[in-house]
Amino acid sequence: MSESLPGGVVRTDMAMNDGRTIRYYDKVDKGSAARIAVDKRPVEAPAGIGELRLDPLVNEWIAVASHRQHRSFLPPKELCPICPTTSDVLTEIPDSAFSVVVFDNKNPSLNAAPAGWVLPELNGPATTTPAGVGKCEVVVFTDKHDSSLKELSEDQIALVVAAWRDRTKEISKLPNIVQIFPFENRGVEVGVTIPHPHGQIYAYSYLTPRTERMLAVAQAHKTKTGRVLMDDIVSREINDKVRIVAENAHWVAYVPFASRYPYEIHVAPKKRVPDFAELNDEQAAALPSITKEVLSRLDGVYGIPMPYMASWHQAPVALGRDLLGLHLQITSVRRTPDKLKYLAGSESGVGAFVMDMAPEQSAEQLKAVKL
Amino acid sequence: MSESLPGGVVRTDMAMNDGRTIRYYDKVDKGSAARIAVDKRPVEAPAGIGELRLDPLVNEWIAVASHRQHRSFLPPKELCPICPTTSDVLTEIPDSAFSVVVFDNKNPSLNAAPAGWVLPELNGPATTTPAGVGKCEVVVFTDKHDSSLKELSEDQIALVVAAWRDRTKEISKLPNIVQIFPFENRGVEVGVTIPHPHGQIYAYSYLTPRTERMLAVAQAHKTKTGRVLMDDIVSREINDKVRIVAENAHWVAYVPFASRYPYEIHVAPKKRVPDFAELNDEQAAALPSITKEVLSRLDGVYGIPMPYMASWHQAPVALGRDLLGLHLQITSVRRTPDKLKYLAGSESGVGAFVMDMAPEQSAEQLKAVKL
Repeated sequence: MSESLPGGVVRTDMAMNDGRTIRYYDKVDKGSAARIAVDKRPVEAPAGIGELRLDPLVNEWIAVASHRQHRSFLPPKELCPICPTTSDVLTEIPDSAFSVVVFDNKNPSLNAAPAGWVLPELNGPATTTPAGVGKCEVVVFTDKHDSSLKELSEDQIALVVAAWRDRTKEISKLPNIVQIFPFENRGVEVGVTIPHPHGQIYAYSYLTPRTERMLAVAQAHKTKTGRVLMDDIVSREINDKVRIVAENAHWVAYVPFASRYPYEIHVAPKKRVPDFAELNDEQAAALPSITKEVLSRLDGVYGIPMPYMASWHQAPVALGRDLLGLHLQITSVRRTPDKLKYLAGSESGVGAFVMDMAPEQSAEQLKAVKL
Repeated sequence: MSESLPGGVVRTDMAMNDGRTIRYYDKVDKGSAARIAVDKRPVEAPAGIGELRLDPLVNEWIAVASHRQHRSFLPPKELCPICPTTSDVLTEIPDSAFSVVVFDNKNPSLNAAPAGWVLPELNGPATTTPAGVGKCEVVVFTDKHDSSLKELSEDQIALVVAAWRDRTKEISKLPNIVQIFPFENRGVEVGVTIPHPHGQIYAYSYLTPRTERMLAVAQAHKTKTGRVLMDDIVSREINDKVRIVAENAHWVAYVPFASRYPYEIHVAPKKRVPDFAELNDEQAAALPSITKEVLSRLDGVYGIPMPYMASWHQAPVALGRDLLGLHLQITSVRRTPDKLKYLAGSESGVGAFVMDMAPEQSAEQLKAVKL
């Protein structure tokens, strides 16, 4: 099954051995786009479903996914599960070459809803415990094992952006999905188990704590000022100028005024949109170059690949869409070439961040990188 | 200056070279309690003060303390800054032996208020940036470098408890202090820079995010049910029984129903108190044994010292004291003898925790440890 997407991209879906879906994203003019390779691995039992337990101290859902304990942990390169399939190794991706693929996670933290599932009312410790509903997908950025997002061509990153847009649109239509979160972790320092360039998408059946908080704060700001908080935040960064590290016609990248990590960069569209689904083609086309630049600046600070977490914050699917804005938050725990920032007592225990480097100082370093 | 404290403890204060205070806590019947050693190090300039920047996306204060960048990082054992002073090395502690000491942090993230300081009203990105006010102290648990909290005698831990009670009482009286947070980080895995057994106390001039959230949730629970949330939580754990790992006449220790880490233990008094200042002598006397037991069980799971963060959650100084309860939260990022849990995209990006181990499973392991 193939489908045409904006920007000359075609998506082809195939079923995996256990019924999961793999989606190939290809440039439409690329001959190799006929994706017909079959998943020849023996059928395995589908993953179980976990549960959502309420932490009543703070009314936050914790996804308990004890069926995930035995997932891959730093497999040797020749057994990478997201490289293309070869005659020797049958991987998650049946084809022998690919551009960008998105497939359903084999060991999802969150899974499809059983019949009649509803998220229960909050009721302190007496709250009932529903199944762990949601959807987890893996986004493979390239078929090259030894690469990284910033090393890809802008055309290749454009395919990743096309996948983010498409997945956000499609997952938004699924029942029980409240919020969609694309992200990438890079580096063993942040626990990455598979170095092959890839990200993930978590779609939650509940509002996550940070998004709930952003929504409440943006709502209060709107009530008080009549303005959208995200617009005021981006305006302040543009006016202050000193923390801006990259910019093009549609996007601006800055070290936020109150960053939490030694290196933290936010990338926001100049014209606010709630999520990838509502990004227009011009905005999408301008995203690869600034993504590449920002990640290159990050790696350039110490001339070493920086561990990072890249979080694409989006408005919830059906809530606060005029209040919250799509933006990328990149955070790195590296504070010097040989030291990491750890979330210690203050951050982990009570959520109070302490930053040892002034945001203007790290912005200066990021700007000074020769590309 | 000496002062008698409950439980036969005497506190003796001395001035350090730069005007900071060091407090010795000793058993009153111990001959060595005459603390008169003088800090003979050359006087250094006092640490600067940082600032509090508002993260307007979530209305949270970030303490920017760029003057702290050059603090000690894993000094060699012979240069440990919190060992007793010797003829060769002058440390933070002038005496040649000690029981428990608490001194003002040399490189505090938060510092005493300049004249006229007030925490500004929140106003989105237009919020003003006040000085980083608060107080940071270091609590040294023993003069033995190669030890740990669980290896200390109950009498020695009782001195640590006496220090927590005394510090909470005294710091509560200082101007501009909203919340007091004693904690301990242990293990290089969680970024500990000085292995000598010690904890810290952070006193904030603002409500920290987790405490603010706990307060709002507890207030809503009280309004809805007429009951105190912490009481309902402890009752549920006692009724469920299966996650209780230690208990005595005054305290109960459990893996919480919705734990966030592979090994997470909460220790709460059976009779709720808001903070250490209001703990009674019987409760205080029963705390060392359960502390020792719980930490010994944690280390016993894999027979190796577990990295952990121990957070003593307390009610704020002047707010919600009938709603929140003192409790210890111990979390460990070790999930197997050779694997750590990392806070990856879901946890770091949007605050949504995923737990790969059922709380009942880790409770079972903790209970099975032979002490």
